[in-house]
Amino acid sequence: MKLSDIAEQFQLESLGNTDVEITGIAGLEGASEHQISFLFSPNYRDLLADSQAGAVVLRPEDAALTDKPRLLSANPRMAWARIASLFDPAPLAMPVIAPSAVISDTASIGQGVAIGAGAVIRSGARIEDGAHIGAGCYIGESAKIGKDSRIKPNVVVYHDVQVGESCIVHANAVLGADGFGFEFDADTGGYIKIPQVFSVIVGDNVEIGAGTTIDRGALNHTTIGSGCKLDNQVQVGHGTSIDHHTVISGCTAIAGSTRIGSYCLIGGAVGIVDNIEIVDRVEITAMTLVSQSILEPGRYSSGTGLMPGYEWKRSVVGFRKLDNILKRIKRLESDQ
Amino acid sequence: MKLSDIAEQFQLESLGNTDVEITGIAGLEGASEHQISFLFSPNYRDLLADSQAGAVVLRPEDAALTDKPRLLSANPRMAWARIASLFDPAPLAMPVIAPSAVISDTASIGQGVAIGAGAVIRSGARIEDGAHIGAGCYIGESAKIGKDSRIKPNVVVYHDVQVGESCIVHANAVLGADGFGFEFDADTGGYIKIPQVFSVIVGDNVEIGAGTTIDRGALNHTTIGSGCKLDNQVQVGHGTSIDHHTVISGCTAIAGSTRIGSYCLIGGAVGIVDNIEIVDRVEITAMTLVSQSILEPGRYSSGTGLMPGYEWKRSVVGFRKLDNILKRIKRLESDQ
Amino acid sequence: MKLSDIAEQFQLESLGNTDVEITGIAGLEGASEHQISFLFSPNYRDLLADSQAGAVVLRPEDAALTDKPRLLSANPRMAWARIASLFDPAPLAMPVIAPSAVISDTASIGQGVAIGAGAVIRSGARIEDGAHIGAGCYIGESAKIGKDSRIKPNVVVYHDVQVGESCIVHANAVLGADGFGFEFDADTGGYIKIPQVFSVIVGDNVEIGAGTTIDRGALNHTTIGSGCKLDNQVQVGHGTSIDHHTVISGCTAIAGSTRIGSYCLIGGAVGIVDNIEIVDRVEITAMTLVSQSILEPGRYSSGTGLMPGYEWKRSVVGFRKLDNILKRIKRLESDQ
Repeated sequence: MKLSDIAEQFQLESLGNTDVEITGIAGLEGASEHQISFLFSPNYRDLLADSQAGAVVLRPEDAALTDKPRLLSANPRMAWARIASLFDPAPLAMPVIAPSAVISDTASIGQGVAIGAGAVIRSGARIEDGAHIGAGCYIGESAKIGKDSRIKPNVVVYHDVQVGESCIVHANAVLGADGFGFEFDADTGGYIKIPQVFSVIVGDNVEIGAGTTIDRGALNHTTIGSGCKLDNQVQVGHGTSIDHHTVISGCTAIAGSTRIGSYCLIGGAVGIVDNIEIVDRVEITAMTLVSQSILEPGRYSSGTGLMPGYEWKRSVVGFRKLDNILKRIKRLESDQ
Repeated sequence: MKLSDIAEQFQLESLGNTDVEITGIAGLEGASEHQISFLFSPNYRDLLADSQAGAVVLRPEDAALTDKPRLLSANPRMAWARIASLFDPAPLAMPVIAPSAVISDTASIGQGVAIGAGAVIRSGARIEDGAHIGAGCYIGESAKIGKDSRIKPNVVVYHDVQVGESCIVHANAVLGADGFGFEFDADTGGYIKIPQVFSVIVGDNVEIGAGTTIDRGALNHTTIGSGCKLDNQVQVGHGTSIDHHTVISGCTAIAGSTRIGSYCLIGGAVGIVDNIEIVDRVEITAMTLVSQSILEPGRYSSGTGLMPGYEWKRSVVGFRKLDNILKRIKRLESDQ
Repeated sequence: MKLSDIAEQFQLESLGNTDVEITGIAGLEGASEHQISFLFSPNYRDLLADSQAGAVVLRPEDAALTDKPRLLSANPRMAWARIASLFDPAPLAMPVIAPSAVISDTASIGQGVAIGAGAVIRSGARIEDGAHIGAGCYIGESAKIGKDSRIKPNVVVYHDVQVGESCIVHANAVLGADGFGFEFDADTGGYIKIPQVFSVIVGDNVEIGAGTTIDRGALNHTTIGSGCKLDNQVQVGHGTSIDHHTVISGCTAIAGSTRIGSYCLIGGAVGIVDNIEIVDRVEITAMTLVSQSILEPGRYSSGTGLMPGYEWKRSVVGFRKLDNILKRIKRLESDQ
């Protein structure tokens, strides 16, 4: 593929020799002469100067930063997303049903469906047209996998869970395991399990990361709105609802019965407690503990900053004394 | 099922028209005319007033809060646990051994056992009466799954691990992977693996969440006491012991060789370091770091509260200066 | 096996009756008369005094602390690693390819390879000599599993991922799922997926814990250097590089495009943000948030210490007022 082909396909203006052969993409540092790279910000001009890339995509206002063959885009990140798709080595699954898949007679399998080796499709499950079920997946009774969704290997979808269209669920994710609900029984000194009789409803165009777990609900469905993106090892508790187009980074833990709005950006390893509300367009930084509702859009944080260990220990001592510090300041002020 | 049937089955006093047909349960907000709901506290009386529920369970002292058909219970949460079990759509596994399961000749399979498609049962493993092994599970050599336990799909149980009776292990959990133990070898500049020669022992009536990992021990078994409940994506390190009826929320990480007492309530995303002791009836709030032993029952926390980002940054600056703050206050006090 | 056999095999000096029969190892507390135990530090002399162990390994300078049969080692932990390997009950997988494994005709399978029941090996994948692939694993197109590596059951390795020699990957780990990359599309109000066209490269002698996820890269490969040890439920984002012999404890979340040096020791449940640099030999304590580059070796921390809940709440209040505290101290100082 020539650079001119890419320019034409995405209608991008070009500068320099567009006959250069492009066989892939790469970052500025690692790119070689037949790869196209991207300048996302003029801050990286030094990397661009040193880059071996055969071509580069940059903003029109940055066009003078290099003599390389280049494509101009007002949004190089969007151009990246589109150009990368030309060079994605991800194999296409053929619409084949593996002989070792175990499919119930009462399951409904659409047109153009792929089902991998050893996958299990239980009674009443519905795999819609063009959906791909990876090897070793388990799709429970009456669950639905929507049109064109891709379920990667060894994912477990419990009974009744509904996944929308054009979703991606990465390997070893679990949708619809029992929510965590028990009631202490004073008579026996043990815990009684509360049956988790509701399910999980996932919208369209949702991506769910590897090892992520989304529990089924006890008093209402757990819901993930269309366009949401959940990274790896996220945990969503029972009965929680996440509205459309919210993005959640890896290892974030969300407890049950919490309502999260749309277009939120939730960082990695965040903890969100149960039974609270977070409105639309809230941004939460990494490792924040959210233990109360957030009723105004904006950016929120908790925790403390990184410190060398010996200094940090002294600050930890000071933190323990903060109430005492406040009292001593008050006394000093009143003594003035 | 009529409301009167439920009243009779659980010996609950009723008020109003007990002929109403009940086909399921739901929360007050989502319930429809043939669903029964629950008032756990008079704080939710507004939700009750707006609810479409066909019937409601509440405490005798709250009986006047509605005119709906209602059941009286001193403990509506316990009533919920019991009534919900009548309407649980979870399919019952038949005691069938799937033809594609791969079962060693030397494994012992009890009466009424279900083994799902593609499950692997290795030599010397023992699946006791009434246990269910999900599709795609791996039960290692000489492992035991106790009577009536349910192992959900794609769980991996390593060799020699012992699971008690009436346990539930959710999908993609891993019991008995190697503990994390290495010794630096100055001669090679690398790490030598310490063989993890002990195993994992799980008591009775334990529930283990999806994606939870419990490592085998190096110098003693890792043990989970009877009645413990572990949520999703919990990590338990090698040689740690957790005494009976302790409840651990999702994404909590517990390092090795730590001893946790009984009836503890450990919040989500808590971190507990290695080689410490936590006594019985300790409560730890979400995202707390436990880096020292807890020798008195009670409630413990660490971290800081949620703040708008720009205010938080200033507090982080102040935290770094806490040692300096203490010194300055001392100087001010001595200057008085 | 007699104690004298162990002494001879590892060339350790012995004291006392070396005819004692040794059938296993155990910690000082749990050891019985035919087990050998270890004194790692004289701090544990009380445990040694009470121990039922039939023999003990200790440092020459601690030899007088007991009358038991004993072996002397300058490094009892290293002796432990070596002696434990004699008593490891982990079953050896036979170099057998299970009939139910589904292996592409174009996959390359080396000598002495074991492939478990139901494992799937896709086209162009290369399983090198002596490697073991557990039951239910998925090895994607053109992926490589190096010589003598052990892949435990239900691991998913996506296409093109390269795993080096003598690695161990524990159950339900996922290597090479898509990195978390999206670009907001103002035209549609949704997110466009950025194809993750690079892969994951794992060096030699790497151990990867159960449920750990390592994402493939978008602009460069995600790389894990030789000799690294990653515990359970670690998350490594796309394009991140971790240099050789770095050790990462459980549940640590590392975002994308970050560069971590060699010989680092990273505690459990740490969070490391994207696009930063951490130099060699950095130690990070448990649950620290690393939100900036670390350019000097040493020990780093964040967070606060454990406190009883009612005291902690007061300190949290004080933390919110830290900026105000600083201002008030300044005023007091200027008023003097």
